[in-house]
Amino acid sequence: MLFFTQCFGAVLDLIHLRFQHYKAKRVFSAAGQLVCVVNPTHSLKYAPTRCAAAQASTEQGILPPCHHHEVVHDPQLVPCTCPLFSCPWEGHLEVVVSHLRQTHRINILQGAEIVFLATDMHLPAPTDWIIMHSCLGHQFLLVLRKQEKYEGHPQFFATMMLIGTPTQANNFTYRLELNRNQRRLKWEATPRSILECVDSVISDGDCLVLNTSLAQLFSDNGSLAIGIAITTSKAHSSEAEM
Amino acid sequence: MLFFTQCFGAVLDLIHLRFQHYKAKRVFSAAGQLVCVVNPTHSLKYAPTRCAAAQASTEQGILPPCHHHEVVHDPQLVPCTCPLFSCPWEGHLEVVVSHLRQTHRINILQGAEIVFLATDMHLPAPTDWIIMHSCLGHQFLLVLRKQEKYEGHPQFFATMMLIGTPTQANNFTYRLELNRNQRRLKWEATPRSILECVDSVISDGDCLVLNTSLAQLFSDNGSLAIGIAITTSKAHSSEAEM
Repeated sequence: MLFFTQCFGAVLDLIHLRFQHYKAKRVFSAAGQLVCVVNPTHSLKYAPTRCAAAQASTEQGILPPCHHHEVVHDPQLVPCTCPLFSCPWEGHLEVVVSHLRQTHRINILQGAEIVFLATDMHLPAPTDWIIMHSCLGHQFLLVLRKQEKYEGHPQFFATMMLIGTPTQANNFTYRLELNRNQRRLKWEATPRSILECVDSVISDGDCLVLNTSLAQLFSDNGSLAIGIAITTSKAHSSEAEM
Repeated sequence: MLFFTQCFGAVLDLIHLRFQHYKAKRVFSAAGQLVCVVNPTHSLKYAPTRCAAAQASTEQGILPPCHHHEVVHDPQLVPCTCPLFSCPWEGHLEVVVSHLRQTHRINILQGAEIVFLATDMHLPAPTDWIIMHSCLGHQFLLVLRKQEKYEGHPQFFATMMLIGTPTQANNFTYRLELNRNQRRLKWEATPRSILECVDSVISDGDCLVLNTSLAQLFSDNGSLAIGIAITTSKAHSSEAEM
Protein backbone atom coordinates (compact mmCIF):
# COMPACT_ATOMS: atom_id res chain seq x y z
CA MET A 1 0.00 0.00 0.00
CA LEU A 2 2.82 2.39 0.99
CA PHE A 3 4.58 1.51 -2.26
CA PHE A 4 1.52 2.48 -4.34
CA THR A 5 1.07 5.71 -2.38
CA GLN A 6 4.71 6.62 -3.05
CA CYS A 7 4.37 5.74 -6.74
CA PHE A 8 1.25 7.90 -6.98
CA GLY A 9 3.09 10.79 -5.25
CA ALA A 10 6.01 10.46 -7.66
CA VAL A 11 3.68 10.52 -10.69
CA LEU A 12 1.94 13.62 -9.33
CA ASP A 13 5.32 15.33 -8.79
CA LEU A 14 6.31 14.45 -12.34
CA ILE A 15 3.08 15.91 -13.77
CA HIS A 16 3.55 19.05 -11.64
CA LEU A 17 7.16 19.53 -12.81
CA ARG A 18 6.18 18.89 -16.43
CA PHE A 19 3.44 21.51 -16.11
CA GLN A 20 5.84 24.08 -14.63
CA HIS A 21 8.38 23.27 -17.33
CA TYR A 22 5.73 23.82 -20.00
CA LYS A 23 4.64 27.16 -18.50
CA ALA A 24 8.20 28.47 -18.19
CA LYS A 25 8.88 27.33 -21.75
CA ARG A 26 5.88 29.31 -22.99
CA VAL A 27 7.31 32.55 -21.51
CA PHE A 28 10.82 32.05 -22.78
CA SER A 29 9.84 30.15 -25.93
CA ALA A 30 10.75 32.99 -28.31
CA ALA A 31 14.42 32.29 -27.79
CA GLY A 32 13.94 28.49 -27.77
CA GLN A 33 15.78 28.34 -24.47
CA LEU A 34 16.43 25.25 -22.39
CA VAL A 35 14.30 25.23 -19.21
CA CYS A 36 15.78 23.53 -16.17
CA VAL A 37 13.68 22.79 -13.09
CA VAL A 38 15.77 23.35 -9.94
CA ASN A 39 14.62 22.02 -6.58
CA PRO A 40 15.59 23.77 -3.35
CA THR A 41 18.33 22.71 -0.99
CA HIS A 42 18.04 23.50 2.70
CA SER A 43 21.33 24.75 4.07
CA LEU A 44 22.23 23.22 7.39
CA LYS A 45 23.50 26.44 8.92
CA TYR A 46 24.56 29.93 7.95
CA ALA A 47 27.84 31.43 9.12
CA PRO A 48 28.09 34.87 7.52
CA THR A 49 31.71 35.52 8.49
CA ARG A 50 32.93 32.12 7.26
CA CYS A 51 34.65 33.51 4.18
CA ALA A 52 35.74 36.96 5.31
CA ALA A 53 39.39 35.91 5.31
CA ALA A 54 39.02 34.15 1.94
CA GLN A 55 37.44 37.29 0.51
CA ALA A 56 40.28 39.51 1.77
CA SER A 57 42.99 37.23 0.40
CA THR A 58 41.21 36.82 -2.97
CA GLU A 59 41.09 40.59 -3.33
CA GLN A 60 44.86 40.60 -2.86
CA GLY A 61 45.22 38.01 -5.63
CA ILE A 62 46.00 35.10 -3.31
CA LEU A 63 44.02 31.88 -3.25
CA PRO A 64 41.90 31.67 -0.08
CA PRO A 65 43.81 30.23 2.88
CA CYS A 66 40.74 30.04 5.09
CA HIS A 67 38.38 27.18 5.58
CA HIS A 68 35.39 26.76 7.82
CA HIS A 69 36.79 23.55 9.25
CA GLU A 70 40.54 24.02 9.23
CA VAL A 71 43.25 26.22 7.69
CA VAL A 72 44.28 25.12 4.21
CA HIS A 73 48.08 25.09 4.11
CA ASP A 74 48.42 24.44 0.39
CA PRO A 75 47.48 27.71 -1.38
CA GLN A 76 46.57 25.71 -4.49
CA LEU A 77 43.67 24.08 -2.63
CA VAL A 78 40.22 25.58 -2.71
CA PRO A 79 37.55 24.77 -0.09
CA CYS A 80 34.21 23.52 -1.34
CA THR A 81 32.44 26.68 -2.43
CA CYS A 82 29.10 24.98 -2.77
CA PRO A 83 26.74 26.75 -0.39
CA LEU A 84 26.14 23.52 1.51
CA PHE A 85 28.19 24.54 4.45
CA SER A 86 28.71 21.20 6.10
CA CYS A 87 31.00 20.01 3.30
CA PRO A 88 34.60 19.62 4.50
CA TRP A 89 35.97 19.03 0.99
CA GLU A 90 38.93 20.93 -0.43
CA GLY A 91 40.68 20.50 -3.75
CA HIS A 92 42.18 22.13 -6.83
CA LEU A 93 40.08 24.53 -8.91
CA GLU A 94 40.06 22.05 -11.81
CA VAL A 95 38.18 19.41 -9.81
CA VAL A 96 35.56 21.71 -8.23
CA VAL A 97 33.04 20.91 -11.02
CA SER A 98 33.34 17.15 -10.61
CA HIS A 99 33.09 17.51 -6.80
CA LEU A 100 29.90 19.60 -7.12
CA ARG A 101 28.39 17.13 -9.58
CA GLN A 102 29.34 13.95 -7.79
CA THR A 103 29.03 14.90 -4.13
CA HIS A 104 26.30 17.53 -4.22
CA ARG A 105 24.45 16.18 -7.29
CA ILE A 106 24.31 19.65 -8.82
CA ASN A 107 23.11 19.50 -12.42
CA ILE A 108 25.15 21.03 -15.21
CA LEU A 109 23.46 22.58 -18.25
CA GLN A 110 24.89 23.48 -21.65
CA GLY A 111 23.99 26.54 -23.72
CA ALA A 112 24.49 30.32 -23.81
CA GLU A 113 20.91 31.01 -22.72
CA ILE A 114 18.93 28.87 -20.30
CA VAL A 115 15.94 29.26 -17.99
CA PHE A 116 16.42 28.45 -14.32
CA LEU A 117 13.07 27.44 -12.84
CA ALA A 118 13.31 27.47 -9.05
CA THR A 119 10.49 25.54 -7.39
CA ASP A 120 8.90 25.86 -3.93
CA MET A 121 9.72 29.52 -3.37
CA HIS A 122 7.48 29.44 -0.29
CA LEU A 123 9.92 27.29 1.70
CA PRO A 124 11.30 29.10 4.77
CA ALA A 125 14.71 30.79 4.70
CA PRO A 126 17.51 29.83 4.53
CA THR A 127 17.09 27.90 1.28
CA ASP A 128 19.33 27.68 -1.79
CA TRP A 129 18.63 26.80 -5.42
CA ILE A 130 21.85 25.88 -7.23
CA ILE A 131 22.80 24.88 -10.74
CA MET A 132 25.94 24.77 -12.89
CA HIS A 133 25.97 26.25 -16.35
CA SER A 134 28.53 25.27 -18.97
CA CYS A 135 29.02 27.96 -21.59
CA LEU A 136 31.74 29.62 -23.70
CA GLY A 137 34.28 27.01 -22.59
CA HIS A 138 33.75 27.65 -18.86
CA GLN A 139 31.53 26.50 -16.01
CA PHE A 140 29.44 28.90 -13.94
CA LEU A 141 27.54 28.36 -10.68
CA LEU A 142 24.16 30.05 -10.33
CA VAL A 143 22.98 30.48 -6.75
CA LEU A 144 19.53 31.71 -5.77
CA ARG A 145 19.22 32.15 -2.00
CA LYS A 146 16.29 32.92 0.22
CA GLN A 147 17.65 34.58 3.34
CA GLU A 148 16.49 36.82 6.17
CA LYS A 149 18.85 39.79 6.31
CA TYR A 150 16.25 41.56 8.42
CA GLU A 151 14.47 39.21 10.82
CA GLY A 152 11.04 38.20 9.62
CA HIS A 153 11.62 39.68 6.14
CA PRO A 154 13.05 37.02 3.80
CA GLN A 155 14.58 38.26 0.53
CA PHE A 156 15.83 36.46 -2.57
CA PHE A 157 19.39 36.96 -3.80
CA ALA A 158 20.62 35.64 -7.17
CA THR A 159 24.21 35.68 -8.40
CA MET A 160 26.47 33.88 -10.84
CA MET A 161 30.03 32.79 -10.05
CA LEU A 162 32.68 31.58 -12.51
CA ILE A 163 34.36 28.33 -11.53
CA GLY A 164 37.69 29.95 -12.35
CA THR A 165 39.94 32.82 -11.27
CA PRO A 166 38.88 36.48 -10.85
CA THR A 167 40.94 37.36 -13.97
CA GLN A 168 39.02 34.80 -16.03
CA ALA A 169 35.71 36.05 -14.56
CA ASN A 170 36.43 39.59 -15.81
CA ASN A 171 36.07 38.33 -19.38
CA PHE A 172 32.36 37.61 -19.00
CA THR A 173 29.04 39.33 -18.40
CA TYR A 174 26.02 37.48 -17.09
CA ARG A 175 22.40 38.57 -17.28
CA LEU A 176 19.51 37.45 -15.09
CA GLU A 177 16.03 38.31 -16.32
CA LEU A 178 12.60 38.04 -14.73
CA ASN A 179 9.59 38.63 -16.94
CA ARG A 180 5.99 38.27 -15.82
CA ASN A 181 2.79 40.19 -15.07
CA GLN A 182 3.80 43.12 -17.30
CA ARG A 183 6.97 43.63 -15.28
CA ARG A 184 10.52 42.96 -16.33
CA LEU A 185 13.64 43.08 -14.16
CA LYS A 186 17.13 42.62 -15.62
CA TRP A 187 20.42 42.45 -13.77
CA GLU A 188 23.71 42.46 -15.70
CA ALA A 189 27.14 42.21 -14.10
CA THR A 190 30.55 40.62 -14.33
CA PRO A 191 30.42 37.21 -12.63
CA ARG A 192 32.49 36.90 -9.46
CA SER A 193 35.07 34.14 -9.17
CA ILE A 194 34.14 31.11 -7.10
CA LEU A 195 37.31 31.92 -5.13
CA GLU A 196 35.41 34.90 -3.74
CA CYS A 197 32.75 33.77 -1.33
CA VAL A 198 29.10 33.58 -2.42
CA ASP A 199 28.13 34.58 1.16
CA SER A 200 30.05 37.85 0.86
CA VAL A 201 28.47 38.68 -2.51
CA ILE A 202 25.03 38.11 -1.01
CA SER A 203 25.68 39.90 2.29
CA ASP A 204 27.08 42.87 0.31
CA GLY A 205 23.86 42.84 -1.76
CA ASP A 206 25.96 43.05 -4.96
CA CYS A 207 23.56 40.81 -6.86
CA LEU A 208 19.95 40.64 -8.01
CA VAL A 209 17.85 41.29 -4.89
CA LEU A 210 14.10 40.63 -4.69
CA ASN A 211 11.82 41.29 -1.78
CA THR A 212 9.08 38.74 -1.12
CA SER A 213 6.27 40.73 -2.76
CA LEU A 214 8.27 41.26 -5.96
CA ALA A 215 9.27 37.57 -6.01
CA GLN A 216 5.56 36.69 -5.76
CA LEU A 217 4.72 39.00 -8.68
CA PHE A 218 7.33 37.27 -10.82
CA SER A 219 6.59 33.71 -9.71
CA ASP A 220 3.92 31.34 -10.91
CA ASN A 221 2.45 28.64 -8.68
CA GLY A 222 5.38 28.98 -6.29
CA SER A 223 8.04 28.71 -9.02
CA LEU A 224 10.33 31.50 -10.20
CA ALA A 225 11.66 31.41 -13.79
CA ILE A 226 14.97 33.26 -14.26
CA GLY A 227 16.31 33.66 -17.79
CA ILE A 228 20.11 33.42 -17.81
CA ALA A 229 22.48 34.58 -20.55
CA ILE A 230 26.26 34.73 -20.54
CA THR A 231 28.35 36.71 -23.02
CA THR A 232 31.96 37.76 -23.29
CA SER A 233 32.38 41.15 -21.64
CA LYS A 234 32.67 43.13 -24.87
CA ALA A 235 29.09 44.13 -24.12
CA HIS A 236 30.47 46.42 -21.41
CA SER A 237 32.89 48.21 -23.73
CA SER A 238 30.14 50.62 -24.77
CA GLU A 239 29.72 51.74 -21.18
CA ALA A 240 31.76 54.86 -20.50
CA GLU A 241 33.78 54.67 -17.29
CA MET A 242 32.90 57.35 -14.80
CA MET B 1 30.98 89.81 4.01
CA LEU B 2 28.01 87.43 4.45
CA PHE B 3 26.85 88.39 0.94
CA PHE B 4 30.21 87.44 -0.59
CA THR B 5 30.29 84.15 1.36
CA GLN B 6 26.81 83.31 0.05
CA CYS B 7 27.81 84.26 -3.51
CA PHE B 8 30.89 82.07 -3.26
CA GLY B 9 28.74 79.17 -1.96
CA ALA B 10 26.28 79.60 -4.82
CA VAL B 11 29.11 79.58 -7.39
CA LEU B 12 30.57 76.42 -5.83
CA ASP B 13 27.12 74.73 -5.94
CA LEU B 14 26.79 75.73 -9.59
CA ILE B 15 30.20 74.27 -10.45
CA HIS B 16 29.33 71.07 -8.54
CA LEU B 17 25.98 70.67 -10.35
CA ARG B 18 27.61 71.41 -13.71
CA PHE B 19 30.25 68.75 -12.97
CA GLN B 20 27.59 66.15 -12.01
CA HIS B 21 25.59 67.04 -15.11
CA TYR B 22 28.70 66.57 -17.27
CA LYS B 23 29.50 63.18 -15.70
CA ALA B 24 25.94 61.88 -16.09
CA LYS B 25 25.92 63.13 -19.67
CA ARG B 26 29.09 61.16 -20.41
CA VAL B 27 27.43 57.91 -19.30
CA PHE B 28 24.21 58.47 -21.18
CA SER B 29 25.75 60.47 -24.04
CA ALA B 30 25.31 57.70 -26.62
CA ALA B 31 21.59 58.39 -26.75
CA GLY B 32 22.02 62.16 -26.49
CA GLN B 33 19.59 62.19 -23.58
CA LEU B 34 18.56 65.19 -21.55
CA VAL B 35 20.08 65.11 -18.06
CA CYS B 36 18.08 66.71 -15.27
CA VAL B 37 19.60 67.36 -11.84
CA VAL B 38 16.99 66.68 -9.15
CA ASN B 39 17.52 67.92 -5.59
CA PRO B 40 15.97 66.07 -2.66
CA THR B 41 12.83 67.08 -0.81
CA HIS B 42 12.45 66.19 2.85
CA SER B 43 8.97 64.92 3.57
CA LEU B 44 7.49 66.38 6.72
CA LYS B 45 5.92 63.13 7.87
CA TYR B 46 5.05 59.69 6.60
CA ALA B 47 1.59 58.22 7.07
CA PRO B 48 1.60 54.82 5.38
CA THR B 49 -2.13 54.25 5.67
CA ARG B 50 -3.05 57.68 4.30
CA CYS B 51 -4.22 56.36 0.94
CA ALA B 52 -5.50 52.90 1.78
CA ALA B 53 -9.08 54.00 1.12
CA ALA B 54 -8.06 55.81 -2.08
CA GLN B 55 -6.29 52.66 -3.25
CA ALA B 56 -9.33 50.47 -2.58
CA SER B 57 -11.71 52.83 -4.37
CA THR B 58 -9.36 53.25 -7.35
CA GLU B 59 -9.23 49.48 -7.76
CA GLN B 60 -13.01 49.54 -7.97
CA GLY B 61 -12.80 52.17 -10.73
CA ILE B 62 -14.01 55.05 -8.53
CA LEU B 63 -12.04 58.23 -8.04
CA PRO B 64 -10.55 58.34 -4.53
CA PRO B 65 -12.98 59.77 -1.98
CA CYS B 66 -10.38 59.85 0.79
CA HIS B 67 -8.16 62.65 1.84
CA HIS B 68 -5.65 62.97 4.62
CA HIS B 69 -7.25 66.17 5.88
CA GLU B 70 -10.93 65.77 5.16
CA VAL B 71 -13.33 63.63 3.11
CA VAL B 72 -13.70 64.81 -0.49
CA HIS B 73 -17.41 64.91 -1.27
CA ASP B 74 -17.04 65.63 -4.98
CA PRO B 75 -15.84 62.38 -6.63
CA GLN B 76 -14.34 64.46 -9.46
CA LEU B 77 -11.82 65.99 -7.04
CA VAL B 78 -8.40 64.42 -6.54
CA PRO B 79 -6.28 65.13 -3.46
CA CYS B 80 -2.74 66.38 -4.04
CA THR B 81 -0.80 63.24 -4.87
CA CYS B 82 2.55 64.92 -4.57
CA PRO B 83 4.44 63.07 -1.84
CA LEU B 84 4.69 66.27 0.23
CA PHE B 85 2.16 65.20 2.75
CA SER B 86 1.35 68.50 4.36
CA CYS B 87 -0.41 69.75 1.22
CA PRO B 88 -4.19 70.13 1.76
CA TRP B 89 -4.87 70.83 -1.94
CA GLU B 90 -7.53 69.02 -3.92
CA GLY B 91 -8.64 69.54 -7.49
CA HIS B 92 -9.56 68.00 -10.83
CA LEU B 93 -7.13 65.63 -12.55
CA GLU B 94 -6.57 68.16 -15.35
CA VAL B 95 -5.09 70.73 -12.97
CA VAL B 96 -2.81 68.39 -10.99
CA VAL B 97 0.17 69.24 -13.25
CA SER B 98 -0.19 73.00 -12.79
CA HIS B 99 -0.63 72.51 -9.00
CA LEU B 100 2.54 70.42 -8.80
CA ARG B 101 4.49 72.96 -10.88
CA GLN B 102 3.24 76.09 -9.20
CA THR B 103 2.87 75.04 -5.58
CA HIS B 104 5.57 72.39 -5.25
CA ARG B 105 7.95 73.83 -7.88
CA ILE B 106 8.35 70.39 -9.47
CA ASN B 107 10.18 70.64 -12.77
CA ILE B 108 8.68 69.20 -15.94
CA LEU B 109 10.89 67.75 -18.67
CA GLN B 110 10.11 66.95 -22.29
CA GLY B 111 11.39 63.96 -24.26
CA ALA B 112 10.91 60.20 -24.59
CA GLU B 113 14.24 59.44 -22.87
CA ILE B 114 15.72 61.51 -20.07
CA VAL B 115 18.25 61.05 -17.29
CA PHE B 116 17.12 61.73 -13.73
CA LEU B 117 20.16 62.69 -11.64
CA ALA B 118 19.23 62.53 -7.95
CA THR B 119 21.71 64.41 -5.76
CA ASP B 120 22.65 63.97 -2.08
CA MET B 121 21.75 60.30 -1.78
CA HIS B 122 23.41 60.27 1.64
CA LEU B 123 20.63 62.37 3.23
CA PRO B 124 18.72 60.48 5.94
CA ALA B 125 15.39 58.79 5.22
CA PRO B 126 12.63 59.79 4.56
CA THR B 127 13.65 61.81 1.51
CA ASP B 128 11.99 62.13 -1.91
CA TRP B 129 13.33 63.13 -5.31
CA ILE B 130 10.50 64.10 -7.64
CA ILE B 131 10.19 65.23 -11.24
CA MET B 132 7.49 65.40 -13.90
CA HIS B 133 8.09 64.02 -17.35
CA SER B 134 6.05 65.09 -20.37
CA CYS B 135 6.05 62.48 -23.10
CA LEU B 136 3.73 60.90 -25.72
CA GLY B 137 1.05 63.49 -25.00
CA HIS B 138 0.89 62.73 -21.26
CA GLN B 139 2.56 63.78 -18.03
CA PHE B 140 4.25 61.33 -15.70
CA LEU B 141 5.52 61.77 -12.14
CA LEU B 142 8.79 60.04 -11.23
CA VAL B 143 9.31 59.50 -7.51
CA LEU B 144 12.54 58.22 -5.97
CA ARG B 145 12.15 57.69 -2.24
CA LYS B 146 14.65 56.81 0.46
CA GLN B 147 12.74 55.07 3.23
CA GLU B 148 13.38 52.73 6.14
CA LYS B 149 11.05 49.76 5.77
CA TYR B 150 13.23 47.93 8.26
CA GLU B 151 14.55 50.20 11.00
CA GLY B 152 18.15 51.22 10.47
CA HIS B 153 18.18 49.87 6.89
CA PRO B 154 17.21 52.59 4.41
CA GLN B 155 16.29 51.47 0.90
CA PHE B 156 15.60 53.37 -2.32
CA PHE B 157 12.32 52.92 -4.18
CA ALA B 158 11.71 54.35 -7.66
CA THR B 159 8.41 54.35 -9.52
CA MET B 160 6.61 56.23 -12.27
CA MET B 161 2.98 57.32 -12.10
CA LEU B 162 0.81 58.61 -14.94
CA ILE B 163 -1.03 61.84 -14.20
CA GLY B 164 -4.16 60.25 -15.64
CA THR B 165 -6.55 57.37 -15.08
CA PRO B 166 -5.58 53.68 -14.59
CA THR B 167 -7.05 52.90 -18.05
CA GLN B 168 -4.79 55.51 -19.66
CA ALA B 169 -1.82 54.21 -17.64
CA ASN B 170 -2.27 50.72 -19.13
CA ASN B 171 -1.29 52.09 -22.54
CA PHE B 172 2.30 52.78 -21.46
CA THR B 173 5.45 51.03 -20.33
CA TYR B 174 8.20 52.82 -18.45
CA ARG B 175 11.79 51.72 -18.02
CA LEU B 176 14.23 52.77 -15.32
CA GLU B 177 17.88 51.93 -15.93
CA LEU B 178 20.96 52.15 -13.74
CA ASN B 179 24.32 51.62 -15.39
CA ARG B 180 27.67 51.94 -13.65
CA ASN B 181 30.69 49.97 -12.40
CA GLN B 182 30.09 47.13 -14.87
CA ARG B 183 26.62 46.56 -13.46
CA ARG B 184 23.30 47.27 -15.10
CA LEU B 185 19.84 47.10 -13.54
CA LYS B 186 16.68 47.61 -15.58
CA TRP B 187 13.10 47.75 -14.35
CA GLU B 188 10.23 47.79 -16.83
CA ALA B 189 6.57 48.00 -15.86
CA THR B 190 3.24 49.61 -16.63
CA PRO B 191 3.05 52.98 -14.84
CA ARG B 192 0.47 53.21 -12.08
CA SER B 193 -2.14 55.97 -12.19
CA ILE B 194 -1.61 58.94 -9.89
CA LEU B 195 -5.09 58.07 -8.54
CA GLU B 196 -3.46 55.04 -6.93
CA CYS B 197 -1.26 56.09 -4.04
CA VAL B 198 2.51 56.29 -4.47
CA ASP B 199 2.83 55.18 -0.81
CA SER B 200 0.99 51.92 -1.56
CA VAL B 201 3.16 51.19 -4.60
CA ILE B 202 6.27 51.70 -2.49
CA SER B 203 5.04 49.81 0.58
CA ASP B 204 4.04 46.90 -1.71
CA GLY B 205 7.58 46.99 -3.16
CA ASP B 206 6.09 46.87 -6.68
CA CYS B 207 8.78 49.18 -8.08
CA LEU B 208 12.54 49.37 -8.54
CA VAL B 209 14.05 48.62 -5.12
CA LEU B 210 17.69 49.26 -4.25
CA ASN B 211 19.41 48.49 -0.97
CA THR B 212 21.99 51.02 0.25
CA SER B 213 25.05 49.06 -0.92
CA LEU B 214 23.66 48.65 -4.45
CA ALA B 215 22.68 52.33 -4.55
CA GLN B 216 26.27 53.19 -3.62
CA LEU B 217 27.63 50.97 -6.41
CA PHE B 218 25.44 52.79 -8.92
CA SER B 219 25.97 56.30 -7.59
CA ASP B 220 28.82 58.70 -8.21
CA ASN B 221 29.84 61.32 -5.68
CA GLY B 222 26.54 60.94 -3.87
CA SER B 223 24.40 61.28 -7.03
CA LEU B 224 22.38 58.54 -8.68
CA ALA B 225 21.72 58.73 -12.44
CA ILE B 226 18.54 56.91 -13.55
CA GLY B 227 17.86 56.62 -17.28
CA ILE B 228 14.11 56.88 -17.98
CA ALA B 229 12.29 55.81 -21.12
CA ILE B 230 8.56 55.68 -21.80
CA THR B 231 6.97 53.78 -24.67
CA THR B 232 3.47 52.76 -25.62
CA SER B 233 2.75 49.33 -24.17
CA LYS B 234 3.03 47.45 -27.47
CA ALA B 235 6.43 46.38 -26.13
CA HIS B 236 4.61 44.02 -23.77
CA SER B 237 2.66 42.32 -26.53
CA SER B 238 5.56 39.92 -27.14
CA GLU B 239 5.32 38.71 -23.56
CA ALA B 240 3.20 35.58 -23.32
CA GLU B 241 0.59 35.75 -20.58
CA MET B 242 1.00 33.03 -18.03
